[in-house]
Amino acid sequence: MDPAGAGGSAMSSFSSEIRYDVRPIGAVESPLVDLADAPRQGDEGAPEAWLVIDPAWSLAMRDLEVGQHVVVLTWLDRARRDVLVTRPRDDPNRAEEGIFSTRSPDRPNPIGLHEVTIVEIDGSRLKVRPLEAIDGTPVLDIKPVLGPER
Amino acid sequence: MDPAGAGGSAMSSFSSEIRYDVRPIGAVESPLVDLADAPRQGDEGAPEAWLVIDPAWSLAMRDLEVGQHVVVLTWLDRARRDVLVTRPRDDPNRAEEGIFSTRSPDRPNPIGLHEVTIVEIDGSRLKVRPLEAIDGTPVLDIKPVLGPER
Repeated sequence: MDPAGAGGSAMSSFSSEIRYDVRPIGAVESPLVDLADAPRQGDEGAPEAWLVIDPAWSLAMRDLEVGQHVVVLTWLDRARRDVLVTRPRDDPNRAEEGIFSTRSPDRPNPIGLHEVTIVEIDGSRLKVRPLEAIDGTPVLDIKPVLGPER
Repeated sequence: MDPAGAGGSAMSSFSSEIRYDVRPIGAVESPLVDLADAPRQGDEGAPEAWLVIDPAWSLAMRDLEVGQHVVVLTWLDRARRDVLVTRPRDDPNRAEEGIFSTRSPDRPNPIGLHEVTIVEIDGSRLKVRPLEAIDGTPVLDIKPVLGPER
């Protein structure tokens, strides 16, 4: 990439053909096994779940602590990536909305954001709550929540 | 994927060889062209920037509005992906921390999260602030911020 100077020409360096690869660092282990049973958001009755992280990343996890609030990024591997509009919460009484105005998993890059609390740490396994992602969902990243309010 | 029943066996379905591809939906157009000049976080003096979105996604953007708070996901394409520990903010006086306890761009999947306000919409271009990502950074997703506080 060779960004232009101020004034920008981002589109000249943008190609819709570019791909980057994401590499799961682990997977969700959850009693939720069926998409139909999964809450739409973590704060809607989602259970505790384990993040089973590849031990190759243990050193990267070493400063995580029980009680900490973190954002977990997942890859929602059952999502559709070609959807432009959707009815929020699949409610037939609601009008369609552009997907960037929704948290639908169906979107060009189906990355899930989940704000959770770490409730237990067992080696490279982290128990968190609440997590609405289903069993087997790939985990991409763990980030601390920033800011005084969050 | 064929998740096991309750009790889970996420690791049995986890392979560190799996890859998924992310497909940029656009790119950042910003006066920030040099990583060395970029603030560490958006609230540390980051400027306004344009998100130049591929018109193929215009319908997905149609319900975004000026004044709305959204989370922008980017692909930090200059990051290192093999880093396990880092000194926060590159401060030599601070101890190393596991990268999942930091917001360092250097991480296995260098996905940036940026909470911004939409300040202008011009076709498939969105002006947002504040944004610490540099010019040319690929944009992956735009999501509404959830919850009463955020």
